[in-house]
Amino acid sequence: MGLENNKKLKSVNLQKIKINDAFWTKYTKLVKDVIIPYQWNILNDNVKGAEPSHCLKNFKIAAGESSGEFGGAVFQDTDVAKWLEAVAYTLATDKDKNLEATADEVIDLIGRAQCEDGYLNTYFTIKEPELRWTNLMEGHELYTAGHLLEAAIAYYNATGKDKFLNIMIKFADLICDTFGKEAGKNHGYPGHQEIELALVKLYEITNEKKYIDMAKYFIDERGKSPNYFLEEQKSEKFKRIFPEFDGYSPLYSQSHLPVREQKTAEGHAVRAVYMYCAMADLACEYNDSELFKACEILWKNIVDKRMYITGSIGSSGLLERFTTDYDLPNDSNYSETCASIGLALFGLRMAKITRKAKYIDVVERALYNTVISGISMDGKSFFYVNPLEVWPDSCLSRTSKEHVKPVRQKWFGVACCPPNIARTLASLGQYIYMKAKDTLYINLFVSNTSVVELEEKNIYVELVTDFPNDNNINLKVSSNNDNKASIAIRIPDYAENFNITINGKSCLFEVNKGFAVINGSFNDDIIKVKFDSPARFMYSNPLLRADFAKVAITKGPLVYCLEEVDNGSNLSGIMVNTAEEISEIYDENLLGGTTLLYVNGKKVDDKNSSREKLYLNKRPVLNDIKLKAISYCYWGNRKKGEMIVWMKADII
Amino acid sequence: MGLENNKKLKSVNLQKIKINDAFWTKYTKLVKDVIIPYQWNILNDNVKGAEPSHCLKNFKIAAGESSGEFGGAVFQDTDVAKWLEAVAYTLATDKDKNLEATADEVIDLIGRAQCEDGYLNTYFTIKEPELRWTNLMEGHELYTAGHLLEAAIAYYNATGKDKFLNIMIKFADLICDTFGKEAGKNHGYPGHQEIELALVKLYEITNEKKYIDMAKYFIDERGKSPNYFLEEQKSEKFKRIFPEFDGYSPLYSQSHLPVREQKTAEGHAVRAVYMYCAMADLACEYNDSELFKACEILWKNIVDKRMYITGSIGSSGLLERFTTDYDLPNDSNYSETCASIGLALFGLRMAKITRKAKYIDVVERALYNTVISGISMDGKSFFYVNPLEVWPDSCLSRTSKEHVKPVRQKWFGVACCPPNIARTLASLGQYIYMKAKDTLYINLFVSNTSVVELEEKNIYVELVTDFPNDNNINLKVSSNNDNKASIAIRIPDYAENFNITINGKSCLFEVNKGFAVINGSFNDDIIKVKFDSPARFMYSNPLLRADFAKVAITKGPLVYCLEEVDNGSNLSGIMVNTAEEISEIYDENLLGGTTLLYVNGKKVDDKNSSREKLYLNKRPVLNDIKLKAISYCYWGNRKKGEMIVWMKADII
Repeated sequence: MGLENNKKLKSVNLQKIKINDAFWTKYTKLVKDVIIPYQWNILNDNVKGAEPSHCLKNFKIAAGESSGEFGGAVFQDTDVAKWLEAVAYTLATDKDKNLEATADEVIDLIGRAQCEDGYLNTYFTIKEPELRWTNLMEGHELYTAGHLLEAAIAYYNATGKDKFLNIMIKFADLICDTFGKEAGKNHGYPGHQEIELALVKLYEITNEKKYIDMAKYFIDERGKSPNYFLEEQKSEKFKRIFPEFDGYSPLYSQSHLPVREQKTAEGHAVRAVYMYCAMADLACEYNDSELFKACEILWKNIVDKRMYITGSIGSSGLLERFTTDYDLPNDSNYSETCASIGLALFGLRMAKITRKAKYIDVVERALYNTVISGISMDGKSFFYVNPLEVWPDSCLSRTSKEHVKPVRQKWFGVACCPPNIARTLASLGQYIYMKAKDTLYINLFVSNTSVVELEEKNIYVELVTDFPNDNNINLKVSSNNDNKASIAIRIPDYAENFNITINGKSCLFEVNKGFAVINGSFNDDIIKVKFDSPARFMYSNPLLRADFAKVAITKGPLVYCLEEVDNGSNLSGIMVNTAEEISEIYDENLLGGTTLLYVNGKKVDDKNSSREKLYLNKRPVLNDIKLKAISYCYWGNRKKGEMIVWMKADII
Repeated sequence: MGLENNKKLKSVNLQKIKINDAFWTKYTKLVKDVIIPYQWNILNDNVKGAEPSHCLKNFKIAAGESSGEFGGAVFQDTDVAKWLEAVAYTLATDKDKNLEATADEVIDLIGRAQCEDGYLNTYFTIKEPELRWTNLMEGHELYTAGHLLEAAIAYYNATGKDKFLNIMIKFADLICDTFGKEAGKNHGYPGHQEIELALVKLYEITNEKKYIDMAKYFIDERGKSPNYFLEEQKSEKFKRIFPEFDGYSPLYSQSHLPVREQKTAEGHAVRAVYMYCAMADLACEYNDSELFKACEILWKNIVDKRMYITGSIGSSGLLERFTTDYDLPNDSNYSETCASIGLALFGLRMAKITRKAKYIDVVERALYNTVISGISMDGKSFFYVNPLEVWPDSCLSRTSKEHVKPVRQKWFGVACCPPNIARTLASLGQYIYMKAKDTLYINLFVSNTSVVELEEKNIYVELVTDFPNDNNINLKVSSNNDNKASIAIRIPDYAENFNITINGKSCLFEVNKGFAVINGSFNDDIIKVKFDSPARFMYSNPLLRADFAKVAITKGPLVYCLEEVDNGSNLSGIMVNTAEEISEIYDENLLGGTTLLYVNGKKVDDKNSSREKLYLNKRPVLNDIKLKAISYCYWGNRKKGEMIVWMKADII
């Protein structure tokens, strides 16, 4: 059983982590410089040419300070929540009075839009006040509450101000009074999971057990028979919000079975991983080994059978859902950025509970590939969908590839991904470290300086690296007294020749669940970690039908891809020569400085093909080509064109 | 310019062709024995477990002889039309008093359901009498009229009875009075093309020019700016029938451009090819070279860039539509059976106009592969969608492969394909022969005995063959006087060593546009045609991204495929060895007697793969395998499982 000491590892306070990293800072700085100001204009409907978001207007109408109709989606309030959460994480490391004052004004407005009894949701308050909680399947009230609650907690942690938190506690209390097993209470649970993990966070900060009990109720109740969502549709008060959901299957919302009986990751991928996060939290808190076993099984099902090599999930463009084992098409998948964020959140929880590095391997893969792919290098456009193969000509409207966009899009009407990326980048620190009583875990190799409070001491860390361009990680570590501490450094699954020196001397270390553990009392000690991560050809499991006779190229956590701008069009007509070496060349001028990979291959000669017949009794002619691969996360930052991750290869 | 003498070739009267063919008769006999009786029960809502069709009930309600609501789709009447058309073709060659009496009763009912002014459509008569012609985009009134008209003409040709024809002439007259350029007339055209080709047929049988002028108006008007369908939606009377069509693009119905300006096959594939049929008819009749050029361009676009090797069209599962050049995914296509029927109808017209055999190569490909694939060997189940690759586990509901069914389905609610297959099989004779003043064209190698009326003589033909299992075509030909005649025998594009003997003596022949032409006066002459059609590996055009580094196997007109029942699961893990020969073995016991093809290859070893990781730095292990391929048209007649047409091959 993985519930070690019933004590999961903790995060290091974001305020104590100062990131300054060649790979990451070019993205994280976009949050404050570009995304937060841009989204602020979006929330205020001040962006010319963009669809109005109605977000702040809705709160004003709900507060009785403006007139008009509700605008936007039923979960429109979450855009405000995610903006505030990103602002909070930003303020945690980078104080800004003006930004904080703006956030405070928004929080005041949220407070004024709250109903007397604590209820808070502008859609229902403005539009359907009689229909509160009558359509949990589609209404997103609990989902919206969850995001607001996460934002409130982040804001409290960052600023120490409790106004927003108190607003949300009042709402959480209403939720606790409304839902539950007891007679007279609503026996439902959220159509889109999110409140569960937020209630756990509220419990962690308030120590009020009723909040985590509420989360436990939602998780325990889910999927019991008869299905709540099918039942609620029979009520006179039920009013459909999304007509296309008629004929809804409980699989979509993971309510097909009680969660402990679920063996495969099903339905809408974001819903699924948000739920698994809460399941992991609850399993640990209640020492519930059955629930934890379900988390392990679901994790394994995702990672071993339903996840792309880029750490993305959700194979189906329709309903953004999981499909079936080994069904991972490359050009029609959804692979939503938000789902990879959720997967990273789930993996981090599993790592904290089990102290196993293997979970962070997946977290790192999701962050370095799909999450970063979701945002352009100027922070102004976004992918919701992260395909592994794009042929722009075939991404036509009203086909099964309509969701695949060959270029990143400006802020969408339903803007889940951009603010989700923003809050993830702003809280990147949470992934770098974990801490036990006397051990600091280093998960990710991101340059930063931090002060980590362990039980009886502080540890000062300065981490300097150019990872993933090279694999030298230099740590300067001190502790503020002589008590011994441990540092556990993750040995990535791709690392070869992993070694550590301390103050220039080779260091023997114990390997514990994938972490290299060093014990000592540190006083400006220089720890150098070094490993190799040569570029590799990766093959898929033979049961993964879409990728048989193909290779992907990875180097460290990065998956590589070919782009048309470097390799010409018709990337499907390429055959990689896997017998030859992959050469690695760092290009400091390209894409902010990145390692390019070159391989030899053949490419079909298609010069005159458009004049030829469609089917021929004639072998295609192949020409030699030198292929240039770039990191997947950077694709689409230059020119619109084809892109491919899985390349054909001569496998015989 | 292809409009030869402005005289297109004619069909041979179906009554004069008696088919008795090893390949085809096992299907054609199903029409009378299975499909017509079964559909009769469907039309009467007498099939337990099947959704009620409401078809005849609707006519009774419209006739004032029954009460109740209209049931079924807006075009539900076409099921009755296609049934009557299939009955007519059947009666043409196989008299049956009872069947004819039943058909007469249905025709009487149709007559009673007709409005005073000639209007005939049970949906609008019963449900929306005020809304006639107000939603041409979705209302299908002209489409329905077209199918009824085709049926009426077929019934008249088969039986000589004109009641049905007169009913439909009255409706056609109303249409002519309703639509047109003139002020006060409706300036629209059909949302789903079909009436155009039916009006041409009506002209051919009545010699009334106004009917073909009406068809010409519909074709000429289509796609002019402003778009009629977008305009009609602005009317107060417009009432949407299919909510999912909101945001409709004129491409869908080929109304995006005037037809003469269309260079690529766009939109819903069935609508497109039905329209091209009428365009070809009209181009010939009006000696309209610009219109004919458009037909040639559109044909070429389909055949060279947008058609599957199985002669199917419509790459997109959504909207059953064409997508873009070379976009031919194998596992998510629509490839509707009806679209291949339409393609065959278009090709036959082009062949009649140009006398070029190349059009029949495509017609044959569509008929021998996709049309036959559409029906099970017992005639009781049907494919609407004809994929080239199926992995049943991945055909999940509410994904982009939901439309792909791994097994043929029972009669559907919207039953376009089954009755369309029935009428095609029942009228197969129309594809076998064409005739000019003094030449008989033999297009297809289907055993039959026929009497063909040329201008001044009859030709008696007995054609005996076991094609496509072998390529010996034996003809006994006589003419009833000594005037010379010509016989033109198609040289298929796949034929090698094509030769002809007459009465045992080698015969020199002229080749004219792909036909071998023999001149003579025939008196019980024995003409033997022989050619080779070895099984071949076919490669796709390098621009066809889905099929690069793959091969298909064909033999003659037949495309072959691998099925799981013969080759195990995970057919995507197969690599064909193209260096070795394909062996051909006739199996008289399998699937009514068929030639099987065997090739050697490798197959990935996946025995323990479900226990392995999803991505590995390890080449897959391949084992030798002997592969057994069957004709694509027969797939899915044994056991549910995987199927694949395009197999990976070592192409370097």
